[in-house]
Formats: sequence, C-alpha cells, structure tokens
Amino acid sequence: MDPRAFHSLSYGVYIVSTWDNGRPTGCTANCAAQITSSPATVMVSINKDNYTNKCISDCGHFALSVLAENSDPAIIGTFGFRSGRDFDKFSSVPYTVLDAMPIVQDSCAYIACKVIGTMDTPTHTIFLGEVTGAEKRSDNPPMTYAYYHGVIKGKTAKNAPTYVADAPAETGKYVCSVCGHVYTGNVPFEDLPDSWVCPICGQPKSVFKKA
Amino acid sequence: MDPRAFHSLSYGVYIVSTWDNGRPTGCTANCAAQITSSPATVMVSINKDNYTNKCISDCGHFALSVLAENSDPAIIGTFGFRSGRDFDKFSSVPYTVLDAMPIVQDSCAYIACKVIGTMDTPTHTIFLGEVTGAEKRSDNPPMTYAYYHGVIKGKTAKNAPTYVADAPAETGKYVCSVCGHVYTGNVPFEDLPDSWVCPICGQPKSVFKKA
Repeated sequence: MDPRAFHSLSYGVYIVSTWDNGRPTGCTANCAAQITSSPATVMVSINKDNYTNKCISDCGHFALSVLAENSDPAIIGTFGFRSGRDFDKFSSVPYTVLDAMPIVQDSCAYIACKVIGTMDTPTHTIFLGEVTGAEKRSDNPPMTYAYYHGVIKGKTAKNAPTYVADAPAETGKYVCSVCGHVYTGNVPFEDLPDSWVCPICGQPKSVFKKA
Repeated sequence: MDPRAFHSLSYGVYIVSTWDNGRPTGCTANCAAQITSSPATVMVSINKDNYTNKCISDCGHFALSVLAENSDPAIIGTFGFRSGRDFDKFSSVPYTVLDAMPIVQDSCAYIACKVIGTMDTPTHTIFLGEVTGAEKRSDNPPMTYAYYHGVIKGKTAKNAPTYVADAPAETGKYVCSVCGHVYTGNVPFEDLPDSWVCPICGQPKSVFKKA
C-alpha cells in the first residue's frame, strides 16, 4: 500500500464549530462534503478523541466555516493543534453567531447543520447534518488542503484521517513541539524576538525544540 | 439558504469502479475522502439511483481512480452521464486490473477497498471501505472539482450531491442533451463534422439541441 495515493485525494480546510454548554468551540477538519442536494445534507468526519466530537454529539448541531486562501493560517493551528477541553479557542479568533452557530469571521462561506445521523468508524465519527443555514461570505477562493500543505507549508494534526508521520527534521533545525512546523526563515532562530510565534499554530517561540 | 456556499466545499474528481458479475462498471464521483489512517479507510457517496450503487452493494468492493488535471475529460462524461445498467462504460475507457479491481489507466492514483460499513441518507449511500491496495501512478496534479468546472467547463450530473440546475442556455446556443454542455466554439455548430463529439460526455453531434 502506497500512502502517497491518499495524498491525491482533494479536500478543503474547514473549522467545524459547535457549542459546549454555551461556550463556542471547534476543531480544524479537512473531510467535509455535501452528501445530498434535496434535502441539503453535509457530512464531517471528526476523530473520537477530539473534544469537538463529544460537544457535537451533546449539542446536536455543528457548522462549517470554510477557510479561504487568504484566511490567517494561525486559525488552522489554533483549532487544529490544541484541545477545546482546556483551552478557549475562540478567545483569540473573532466569530459571529449566524443561524445560531459560531462562525469564524475570517472565512469565505459557512454552512450550519442539525445532526440527523452518525456513522461509527474505527477512530472517527461521521456526522451527517441537515443544513439549517448557509451563506457565501466573500469571493476569496476557498483554501484547498493541497494549498495549505504546498503554499502555506502547514502540518497535519495527529488526529486527522490524513495524518502520516513526517520524516524527522534535519539536525539543527528548530521544530514546533505543538504542530511540528519546522522553522526555515532567514533570520537565525536564536535571533527571533521573544514575541515571535509559530506561524502555523500561534504557540510561542519557547515551545520550539532543536532537532 | 445560499446555494453558492456549497460550491465553496473542495473535492477531487474520481471514477468509482466495481464489478457487475465479472463486467467492470462504475460512475463519476466527487465525494470521496479518507476517514481513518490506521486502519486506512476511505468513504464514497453514491446516489441510490446509480447502477454502481447496487453493484457495489452486491460485489462488496470498490476502487477509486483519481483523475489528474490532464486526464481526458471524456472519461468524466462517459462515467457521469450514462448508466452502466445499459451501457458498457469501460468499453471505451482503457483499464487495468490492480488489487483485483478495474482501475482507469488515465489516472494519477488508485485506492482499492472492501466495504466494511454503509450509511443511508435521503438520496445517497455512504460506503465505508477498508483499503486493500493503493498506489500513486504519476506525478500529474490531481484534478479538483473546481478545476473541472472552472477550467474544463464541465457540468454536474443530476444524481450528484452537488447538482444545482443551471440557468437555461442562451437562445440559439447548442446544448448537449446528455450532459448539458453548451457549445461555445468558434466554428459555427452547423459546420462541425458529423464525427464531432461532445468534449464532456463523448456523445455524438446529433444529441445537441438548439436552445
């Protein structure tokens, strides 16, 4: 089995949001798709270890915020590499409540859903949602997963269905211990100001380790 | 509800193939995704009216052939706008049997699966398959659904989850009655040779109607 075949499947990049007892929470996802057109339904696949999975099950509603190519990549890191169990992800990411769901402002479209079915798989739950509201919010092109990896040089979280362990970073390079981003800037890592943060997950310079 | 929001979801373009009592058959699909990485599983969503749905249910196996940007668009039309019930789609599309499944030769990767679960939705079945074989077959970039619509100017079949009826074609234009492609070439339609075929679905000139 050649794992490179899986990288040929195409996806977008989404923030799947829901409510956790009145507090907005969510996670980054790439696996979301329209399943039926009439009635309109949409599916998302969420790892069972993700706190968002439990919150969607409890709340019965979820929304997709569709990220655009020009959306801030730090949103992906904030929602993809930390847990909503012990961190308020929306505290640093502006949102609007639309169709009763928290929607990331820096997105090009959203789709709000009511859960009407679930499918259990070995590690993930597929949630099927009937669409309760949807809107295109800008003409910015949607970000594809290929764009995230190829242009933004983003990483894949361990809980994602598409996760494949990277080769170890080159010795001497600095690697983010939260998201795995390898620093390749021109300024020597040691000379970066203390206020510098990981461009992918927004964590401080102090979480980087030398490979 | 703004239907344009659904167009912001990103997909690839795939031929989902299976066996119909020893004869290869299949259909075009855009909704396919990896669901879990260990064990590796992949899902596809297929309309219940598609003959391929019944054949996958009977056979218990399916494969995805991942089309590339430079794959022949007529493959999409052959598999997307005609039924395998009364037409041998693979008669005009070369294929290879790999991991016991028929794979479209003009593809950049394939993933073969054994069905391990299904989910019923109002119009489609989600098939979850455990991967039995997968291979990247070329470095050609995978075709995205956006590329198919934006660059190839392809159409969406009525059975697809993403189908939205187009506005009627401009009066006087010639429209393919099989796939809905609107002829916009520089040569007047009447002057095209009788051997000319629809670039999207491969049907003859005679199936075009004047709008």
